Amino acid sequence: MEYTVNILLFTGFETLDVFGPVEVFGKVEGLDLRYFSQTGGIVSNNDGIEIITQSTDEIKQEKKTILFIPGGMGTRKEIDNKPFIGLIRKIAEQSTLVLTICTGSALLAKTGLLDGKKATSNKRAFDWVKTSSDRTEWIKDARWVKDGKYYTSAGISAGIDMALAFIADIKGKNTALQIAERMEYNWNENQPIYK
Amino acid sequence: MEYTVNILLFTGFETLDVFGPVEVFGKVEGLDLRYFSQTGGIVSNNDGIEIITQSTDEIKQEKKTILFIPGGMGTRKEIDNKPFIGLIRKIAEQSTLVLTICTGSALLAKTGLLDGKKATSNKRAFDWVKTSSDRTEWIKDARWVKDGKYYTSAGISAGIDMALAFIADIKGKNTALQIAERMEYNWNENQPIYK
Repeated sequence: MEYTVNILLFTGFETLDVFGPVEVFGKVEGLDLRYFSQTGGIVSNNDGIEIITQSTDEIKQEKKTILFIPGGMGTRKEIDNKPFIGLIRKIAEQSTLVLTICTGSALLAKTGLLDGKKATSNKRAFDWVKTSSDRTEWIKDARWVKDGKYYTSAGISAGIDMALAFIADIKGKNTALQIAERMEYNWNENQPIYK
Repeated sequence: MEYTVNILLFTGFETLDVFGPVEVFGKVEGLDLRYFSQTGGIVSNNDGIEIITQSTDEIKQEKKTILFIPGGMGTRKEIDNKPFIGLIRKIAEQSTLVLTICTGSALLAKTGLLDGKKATSNKRAFDWVKTSSDRTEWIKDARWVKDGKYYTSAGISAGIDMALAFIADIKGKNTALQIAERMEYNWNENQPIYK
């Protein structure tokens, strides 16, 4: 496997934040998808989904790894969960790349790792997200933003667009276009990306 | 609850076929989402997802119910699973409405319930899907098709568009537009619908 994608779930994650990008990643040769949560076990959300996760203690950092953090109403609680924020910081520091969807960027910003960096988030929750860090340069007019090893996307379905842009970065644009076609998805690819 | 949405999973279901529409449905007041499989328990797919389901024996038909059938590579095996096809026929007959995404329409067509009806499916798997029933009028040039109580969609992300169209039907177009906006999703709403 070229990359391991470590998907970090929590109670109240937003469904499509996770499974839109997962649909994209699953179509790429060389990506290994794994599902984690702070303590492992079953993680549920408001759409009645119950998904099985491993504990983050099981995350292995022996090769190229991507940390993937979704958003959702659960972020409102997790932003005050200091051990969880500390865990995100530790895993993010050890990861090759970090991708957040929607309000997942608030959790990442809270760690301090987005200090001095450009990032974006859900448009409707933007004012709340900005309270997570006043040292991050929040870009409202973006469907996704890349700054160094950090990719952050706008709300929910924007995660699919960013996932395709991410695949274009690591595998070439043709691969991303082929996946969008297989998904019968109209990729919003012309969105500002900050490098 | 106004409607119960009974989501029927099987090994090898396509991720976004399920969770795109789930994202839409979860934002609608009055829809109760439940996850089932033929025998219940954990259902997995090629994206490493392990989701907990109930047995279809637990489906209750005491009120308005929607049967929801995704597609995915697992349909290639399930199409020859006669007890499962029989189960789909029984549940579909008892349901108020039936929605299929992608190659899920092949499973529904195999039951005979789409005989004499218009339906669509994944564009890349269309020739295979047509072998499930030569008594169905397969419409290739459609993002989704409605015929009576049956909604069928094209591939993967087309399920999101159909889910929004379905919500427009039962809750009004404004509700669908508001959900698309919350999802930051560009709804492909101008697709042929056969009524």
